[in-house]
Amino acid sequence: MALSLGAIVDALGGELHGDRAVSIERLAPLKSAQADALTFLSSSKFNDDLVVSKAACVIVAPAMREIAAARGAFIVATDPQYYFALLTQLWKAHLARPGTPRIHPSAIIDPGADIDSTARIGALCVIERGVRIGADTVLKSNVTVSEDCIIGARCNLYPGVVIGADGFGNALHEGKWVKIEQLGAVRIGDDVDIGANTCIDRGALDDTVIEDGVKLDNLIQIGHNVRIGKHTAMAGCTGVAGSTSIGAHCTIGGQGIIIGHVTIADGVHISAGTTVMGSILKPGHYTGVFPIDDNASWQKNAATVRQLHTLRDRLRALEKAATQDNKAP
Amino acid sequence: MALSLGAIVDALGGELHGDRAVSIERLAPLKSAQADALTFLSSSKFNDDLVVSKAACVIVAPAMREIAAARGAFIVATDPQYYFALLTQLWKAHLARPGTPRIHPSAIIDPGADIDSTARIGALCVIERGVRIGADTVLKSNVTVSEDCIIGARCNLYPGVVIGADGFGNALHEGKWVKIEQLGAVRIGDDVDIGANTCIDRGALDDTVIEDGVKLDNLIQIGHNVRIGKHTAMAGCTGVAGSTSIGAHCTIGGQGIIIGHVTIADGVHISAGTTVMGSILKPGHYTGVFPIDDNASWQKNAATVRQLHTLRDRLRALEKAATQDNKAP
Amino acid sequence: MALSLGAIVDALGGELHGDRAVSIERLAPLKSAQADALTFLSSSKFNDDLVVSKAACVIVAPAMREIAAARGAFIVATDPQYYFALLTQLWKAHLARPGTPRIHPSAIIDPGADIDSTARIGALCVIERGVRIGADTVLKSNVTVSEDCIIGARCNLYPGVVIGADGFGNALHEGKWVKIEQLGAVRIGDDVDIGANTCIDRGALDDTVIEDGVKLDNLIQIGHNVRIGKHTAMAGCTGVAGSTSIGAHCTIGGQGIIIGHVTIADGVHISAGTTVMGSILKPGHYTGVFPIDDNASWQKNAATVRQLHTLRDRLRALEKAATQDNKAP
Repeated sequence: MALSLGAIVDALGGELHGDRAVSIERLAPLKSAQADALTFLSSSKFNDDLVVSKAACVIVAPAMREIAAARGAFIVATDPQYYFALLTQLWKAHLARPGTPRIHPSAIIDPGADIDSTARIGALCVIERGVRIGADTVLKSNVTVSEDCIIGARCNLYPGVVIGADGFGNALHEGKWVKIEQLGAVRIGDDVDIGANTCIDRGALDDTVIEDGVKLDNLIQIGHNVRIGKHTAMAGCTGVAGSTSIGAHCTIGGQGIIIGHVTIADGVHISAGTTVMGSILKPGHYTGVFPIDDNASWQKNAATVRQLHTLRDRLRALEKAATQDNKAP
Repeated sequence: MALSLGAIVDALGGELHGDRAVSIERLAPLKSAQADALTFLSSSKFNDDLVVSKAACVIVAPAMREIAAARGAFIVATDPQYYFALLTQLWKAHLARPGTPRIHPSAIIDPGADIDSTARIGALCVIERGVRIGADTVLKSNVTVSEDCIIGARCNLYPGVVIGADGFGNALHEGKWVKIEQLGAVRIGDDVDIGANTCIDRGALDDTVIEDGVKLDNLIQIGHNVRIGKHTAMAGCTGVAGSTSIGAHCTIGGQGIIIGHVTIADGVHISAGTTVMGSILKPGHYTGVFPIDDNASWQKNAATVRQLHTLRDRLRALEKAATQDNKAP
Repeated sequence: MALSLGAIVDALGGELHGDRAVSIERLAPLKSAQADALTFLSSSKFNDDLVVSKAACVIVAPAMREIAAARGAFIVATDPQYYFALLTQLWKAHLARPGTPRIHPSAIIDPGADIDSTARIGALCVIERGVRIGADTVLKSNVTVSEDCIIGARCNLYPGVVIGADGFGNALHEGKWVKIEQLGAVRIGDDVDIGANTCIDRGALDDTVIEDGVKLDNLIQIGHNVRIGKHTAMAGCTGVAGSTSIGAHCTIGGQGIIIGHVTIADGVHISAGTTVMGSILKPGHYTGVFPIDDNASWQKNAATVRQLHTLRDRLRALEKAATQDNKAP
């Protein structure tokens, strides 16, 4: 497929400097873009790549106008990454091939489920009774949505997603675990994306809640009664334990784990690989990762970590002795 | 739906102080329970919430009798959380709606599988030949049980569970991995729960074994030839590498990883986010997590971790010098 | 089933010392092997087990010839573990029961997919249009391969695998995430194994690439535009974030996480539980794990970790003071 530069700016806006008739055959990263490709500059740290790029055209921020002009055709956009995101959507819409049914005949849908007439349900999905699915929401193949769970509009659920399995609730009684039936459900807002094989458990008594605009990557576990605030994004392999509340506009790096029953404020950013062991009430960037090292160095330093408390006491003793020496006549 | 307080204590026992005729419309957490709800007090640290609770009735331990009486109706139970667990089961049984077939017609079941006549198999499950499934066990949708694996009675397997995929066995030969076929199977005891998208691999030669009463949360990986002892519980995103043996009555926090070929004793409790790098032969509570901090502080401290061994040596040198000073005439 | 020792060495080579007619009923680990079993010695550290083994026959390296001869029948092989791997394959081939169709009738396969006539597609797989699957590749049940993804020859994809879900690409615009459509695909080489419920995302513009001979365990997340080099193996629960390039012949332990946009050289080995926060350009063995300890000790040491930078400064101050003391007249 192809789109002309003219057709692109007609659809998306932006200030084109170059020939409207040039045909764009593909979208490509700045470094590998060839003469048939449109690309974009995400950050000024890639300026050197811009200068030598062979791309047919580059989307740049207003501040890059001069450097871009020296190279060739360009489109000026206030936010080039956002412009590029819209461009991928335009491209995808043009790519769309006909033929997939709105509700795949292999999907198992309870007659008591309420699915918006514009939603799409992929092959081998299982939709149980009482489920509600909003307008323009897309379930790819093999998605399970259990009883009474609610999914908003314009959501994307990728293959293998499980919504509304029982939360992990058990009471310990005489050394054995007794199941606490999970009587809540899951409520998911609008514009939520849920990655492949991610699981969101139903609540114990109240519901588990995912607010509007949340983006979850693959293989994430969301425990029962968790609440995730608007426009928070979470990278793959992350786990959030039960009854934890995460604010809006947070980002959680890959393979984070947030323990249960804590509160994370709005605007908190957690680095990949970090274990969150308590509430975080101030916005900011937080990290807790043992620094990687060659194994031999790690072994020596890790052994010392186990003596840290003792080392601190020894340091204190030296300081005390030094102070007394100085005081001595 | 609704149940009267009288019907509840008739079914579950407990000492009711209040009107048997009061109708309970829902079960609710202590804090949000309204006048139509039954709730429970899990710990004396929530006493303040009890005093102001609007709940129709509260389940309390014998020691809370007086405080509860000052508020309104209550049920005395020796172990309120256990009583509440049984209550959720009673509630769920009353909620049960008719209509789902015992074996969903979309399930793919090998004629050579032996499924107890009381077991329930959900939509789109795949049950291969030689599989045995015990009484009253429930497989939700999309569960795979591979050849020759055995599942006991009263188990719950949630959507996306994979039992008996090949263990990760490869021999390195001239720089390439050669597959070691996995000739064992998986044996799962009675009363085992397995969370959504959790995987339990078949053994290489012997079987992988999950003993009675084990509870596994979602997205857990159990490697080949692992053995998990009775009534051990494991939170989401945890991995157990091959040939490791975990004792009975253990708890493993979320996103733990236990390396292969080690032994964990009975009664070991591992905190969330901890990597277990060797055997643990004494019961107790173990942790290994880099403490989370604001990113700037973490950067400084993490940099110092990489010099820890050197710092220890420098501390020693100072101590030695101080000792010699004191010895000097 | 059974195979005679003679049949085994006729098929696999190796130097048999013992009766060709002896019937092997099972393959077993060295420790538990009984008189009907063939086993192997993987390392000289198990010599004591060899001496007392009741196995019908033991596969050993040339250096073990004498010790093995003192015990009973044995097969000498240059690389006993490799020999044993081939033996499991021979055994599995003899075990194979007839009856499963090459393409299970419940699989949902787009007519535009190109599946080699020798490939096997299990129950309830979903194969979208434009997909290519090579010779002798096996997809177990419930595997999803999305549009335009390519899988080579002799691969094994286990239940629940998701190939080609959208990468996690979003542009932040006025506090909301805007989807970047993922226009690339996934290209998987020959002889690649992909464990249960593992996900490999499609690329944003270019493809995500898994080279020949890569072995991925269960529940692994591979982000968009990742490249994994030949014969690299990765244990369960690991995550690789987008645009990272991993070399050939690497091993990544369980529940590792490698952040995005970094480069890992050939021959890098990462310990289980390690977070890789930057590029690693030299082969070697790397670790970054907080050492596990009893919880009380951990608490004290972890508290001190948060003061490490300060401790270092205090140590420096003491060193400076000591130096000045020595310089003093």
